Amino acid sequence: MIHSLSLSDVLADHARSRPGVTAVVDGATRLTYPELDARVTRLAGALAGLGVGGGDRVLWLGRNSHAVLELLLACSRLGAVCCPANWRQSEDELRFVLADLTPSVVVWEPSDTTAALRGSGPGTWVRAGDEYERLIADASPREFPQVPDAEPVLALYTAGFGGRPCAALLSSAALIAHATSLLVVRQMEPGFTFLNSGPLYHVGTMMFCLATLQIGGTNVFTPAFDAEEVCRLVDAERVTQAFLFGPMIDAVAKANADGAYDLSSLRFVTHSAEWDDMITVDGSPWCRSKMGGYGQTEVGGMLTFLGLAEGGAGFAGRPNPLVQVRLLAPDGVEVPVGEVGEICARGKTLFSGYFARPDLNAAKSAYGWHHTGDLGRRELDGTITFIGPKLRMIKSGAENVYPAEVERALASHPAVAGAAVIGVPDPVWQQAVKAVVALHPGGTATGDELIGHVQALLASYKKPREVVFVDEIPKRGPTPDYDALDAAHGGGGYPGH
Amino acid sequence: MIHSLSLSDVLADHARSRPGVTAVVDGATRLTYPELDARVTRLAGALAGLGVGGGDRVLWLGRNSHAVLELLLACSRLGAVCCPANWRQSEDELRFVLADLTPSVVVWEPSDTTAALRGSGPGTWVRAGDEYERLIADASPREFPQVPDAEPVLALYTAGFGGRPCAALLSSAALIAHATSLLVVRQMEPGFTFLNSGPLYHVGTMMFCLATLQIGGTNVFTPAFDAEEVCRLVDAERVTQAFLFGPMIDAVAKANADGAYDLSSLRFVTHSAEWDDMITVDGSPWCRSKMGGYGQTEVGGMLTFLGLAEGGAGFAGRPNPLVQVRLLAPDGVEVPVGEVGEICARGKTLFSGYFARPDLNAAKSAYGWHHTGDLGRRELDGTITFIGPKLRMIKSGAENVYPAEVERALASHPAVAGAAVIGVPDPVWQQAVKAVVALHPGGTATGDELIGHVQALLASYKKPREVVFVDEIPKRGPTPDYDALDAAHGGGGYPGH
Repeated sequence: MIHSLSLSDVLADHARSRPGVTAVVDGATRLTYPELDARVTRLAGALAGLGVGGGDRVLWLGRNSHAVLELLLACSRLGAVCCPANWRQSEDELRFVLADLTPSVVVWEPSDTTAALRGSGPGTWVRAGDEYERLIADASPREFPQVPDAEPVLALYTAGFGGRPCAALLSSAALIAHATSLLVVRQMEPGFTFLNSGPLYHVGTMMFCLATLQIGGTNVFTPAFDAEEVCRLVDAERVTQAFLFGPMIDAVAKANADGAYDLSSLRFVTHSAEWDDMITVDGSPWCRSKMGGYGQTEVGGMLTFLGLAEGGAGFAGRPNPLVQVRLLAPDGVEVPVGEVGEICARGKTLFSGYFARPDLNAAKSAYGWHHTGDLGRRELDGTITFIGPKLRMIKSGAENVYPAEVERALASHPAVAGAAVIGVPDPVWQQAVKAVVALHPGGTATGDELIGHVQALLASYKKPREVVFVDEIPKRGPTPDYDALDAAHGGGGYPGH
Repeated sequence: MIHSLSLSDVLADHARSRPGVTAVVDGATRLTYPELDARVTRLAGALAGLGVGGGDRVLWLGRNSHAVLELLLACSRLGAVCCPANWRQSEDELRFVLADLTPSVVVWEPSDTTAALRGSGPGTWVRAGDEYERLIADASPREFPQVPDAEPVLALYTAGFGGRPCAALLSSAALIAHATSLLVVRQMEPGFTFLNSGPLYHVGTMMFCLATLQIGGTNVFTPAFDAEEVCRLVDAERVTQAFLFGPMIDAVAKANADGAYDLSSLRFVTHSAEWDDMITVDGSPWCRSKMGGYGQTEVGGMLTFLGLAEGGAGFAGRPNPLVQVRLLAPDGVEVPVGEVGEICARGKTLFSGYFARPDLNAAKSAYGWHHTGDLGRRELDGTITFIGPKLRMIKSGAENVYPAEVERALASHPAVAGAAVIGVPDPVWQQAVKAVVALHPGGTATGDELIGHVQALLASYKKPREVVFVDEIPKRGPTPDYDALDAAHGGGGYPGH
C-alpha cells in the first residue's frame, strides 16, 4: 500500500500542502483544500452511515455542482464508486441506469424526470442542496482504512453495446495517471483554475476537473453552459481554462463583444481574431495542436495527443506517454504500418471494465489488449490516423475489409455526398463488398468510376464489387444505419454474427 | 496486465510511434528508437542465454554509456535488475558491491580496479565495447512474456546504513511515475534532448535520462564531464538540457568565453550574466525555482519541488504530484504544523526496498510510510523545510530533540563556525542536550550566551543544558561524527539504541 495513491490521498495531501488555496468555487460556495477535505471526511462518514461500502455505487442526478467532486472524493475514501449520470436523459433511459447500476444512494436535483423516478428506484434518495448539506452537517468525521488505488471509483456511462449504454469503471490509479498526462501535454501549473462549463458526466470535462485537482488548482463549477456567466466567472475567478469548443467559443466571444469582461487570464487555443484578442493564446503542446487527438471514456480520456506529433501525418497524433497503442487484426496480430486495424491499448490510464458486463469485458480485453472498437492506421512517421468506428467488419476472401475505410475513400470523390459499405453473402468469397452511395445534387459518377476511384486509393480486395445509388444514406446517430442498409440491400454473412 | 507499463513497453511504443526519432547519441553511435528497440531485443536474448532470469542482477562497472540504458531496458524485458555502480569506488568497496549484489552478469570497462576484480566476483564478465557488441551481434531476437511494471528493474547504491551502502530497488512503475512528474514540472516536450553529463549511477542524472526516454526525446551520452566536450555536444546535437550545476556551469561558460559554440538550444536555469547570454533561460517551474527541492534515491529522485511552491516559506517546496508526504513522530503520529518530524512518504514514485535488507526494509516502512531518515517541518503555508538527517534522536523529558534542528539554531550565531549536538544520560530526564561548538577564529561567545540564542529560536526543552568548546567538529562525510563525539563528551542513552 506504500505505492498506492487514491483521489482521496491526493486531497489529503493538498489539505496539508495547500492550506490557503481555494479548491472549489460554486456560486456562493468557496472551499479551501482543508475545508473540502473536512467536508469529504464528513460526507464519507454520512455515506457509510447510509450503508455505502466498498464497491457500492453512489449516483448523482443533476446539473454540474461541486457536490459531484465531493461525492467522488468521498467514494474514493470508502472504496465506493461515484456515477455522475446524464440527467437530461429520458425517464426510460434513467430507469435503465437505476436498474443497471443499483445505487445505494442517489443524490438528485428536482426535475420532472427525477421527481417521477424518486422512490421507484433502489437506494436512499438524497435531494441535492438542503438534504445533502444536512447529511454533511449531521455526520461525524470518521477515519477509514486506506483503499488501494486500483479500486474503481468513478463510473461514466458510455456508448451502447446492444443498444444500451454501459458504465465504464475507472480506478483512482487510472484517473490520476490520465490527469498527470494532461498536466504534461497541457503544461498545467500550480494556480491553474478550471471552469467546469461542460457536463461532468462526460469524460471531457471530468478529466480536466481531476487534472486541476491533481496540480492543486481551483475548480470553478457552473450548473450548465451560459455564455454570459462564463464571461463573468472567467473575469471574477481569473480562470485559466474552461471546457469550451467551437460554437461555445463563438457564443462567449459574442457575449463579450463589448469587452465588458477581462478574459485575459484564459490561456486557450486560438480560434478567431476576435477571440484571440480577448484571451492569452496558449503555446503548450495541447493548445498548439488545437486540442486534437483520439480518446474515449474507457481510456480515461485521451489515448493519443495531436500535441505530441506536430506536423505528423496522422491527425490523431501520438500516444499518451502513459499508454501503449497497437493496431491489431481480429486475430490479435499487429497489422503492418499503413494498414487499418483496431486501435488497441494497454497502460496506466485504462479503465477497469464495464460495470456488470463480464462477457463484454472479456471480449474487449482479448489478447491482453483493450479493444477500443475504433479503427486506425499507423502512418509511416509513426503517428496514428483515426479511421472510424469498427462496427461490422466484412470478410472477403479471408481478407478483412472495414466499411469505414472504404467509405472514407468513396467520400473523397467530389461527386459523392455520402457512402455506406456493407457486406453481401458470396458463395466463393464468403462476402462481397457493396457500396451504397448518395451523390451531391448535380453530381455524376458511375458505379465503375467509383470502384476505380477506390481501387486507386486502397488495396484491390477492398474495392466494392457493386455500387447502388440512393438519395440519402440512412443514419443512426452520426453513423450509417447498417441494419437498415443490410435489410434494404441484401447485406449479411458477417463473421461472428 | 492491461494496466502495466514497463520501461521496455515504453521503448516498444516509441519504436512504433517515433520511427525517425534519434533515441541515443554516444560518440559515433546514433540509434533511432526502432534501432534501439532491435538492439535491446537482441541484448535481452543474449542475457537470457547467459542465464539472466527474473530478479537476477546485471552490473555495469564503467563510465557513462548508452550501454547503461540498453542494459536497463533489456533487464526490463527480462524482469531482471540493472545496477550501474560507481566504478570510481575503491577495490574494497567494489568487492563489497559484488558480494552484496551477486550479479549474474558484469559488464565492465577496463581500469586498474576492474581488472583486479575480474574473475574474483560471481557471474559472467563481459567487457564493454567489443565483447558487449559481439554479444548483441551474435544473439537472436527473442520474445519474452510481459513483465509486470511493479517488478524492480533498477538498483542504485545509496547512503550507508551500518557503514555500508545499500542497493535501492526501483520498479518500472516508480521510474515511469517519477519521469512523468519531471515532464510536468520541467515542462518537457517532444524533441527534448538531454546530455547525460553527470554519472548514471546517480539518480540525479538517471531520472532525467528516463524522463527523456518517456517523452520520446534524445539521450546524448558522454563518458564523463568535460566542459569543452559539453559545449561541442550542446552545439552539435542542439541539446535542451544537461546535468550541470554551479561549478560545472562556470566551467562550461568559461570554456565558451569566446562564443565559439552555439549553446542557445540549452533551456536552463539562470546562473550568471555570462551564462544567461549563451543559453535560453527556461521559464518552466523547475527552472524558475532554480531546480530546488528535496529528494533521495529511495523516492525515485525528487520528493518535493520548489517549483510547485513559488514564494513559499519552506525551501524544499511542495510534494511531487504523485506522492503524499507526512511529517511523522517516531510513534508514527503526524506532528503538528511548525514542528519537526521525519519526512515520510507514500505514492507512485517510491522504491521497492533495498536489495537483500529485510530488517532495514521493515524499519524504513513502519506504519505504512517510507521513512526517509531526514527531518523536515511543515510551514504554515503548507510548504516543507528540510532540516537535516535524522541520525540519532535525543529523548529528554519525554520530548524528542533532533540534533540537526538545534545545530541549525547554534550555527545561526555569528561566532559559531560549527556545532554538533549530542544526548548525555540524565537520571531524571533520560537524556540532556549537550552542544559541542567550534567558534570562528576571533569569535567569542559564552555557553550561556549560546544557550540563550537557541532558546530564543526553539522550544525551551531543545536548548542545550551544557556547551563545550572544541577547535573543530569531527566529521564523517558531510555530517558530524556522532560516535566520536559521544565517546569524547559522554554521549549515550539514546532511545532504541
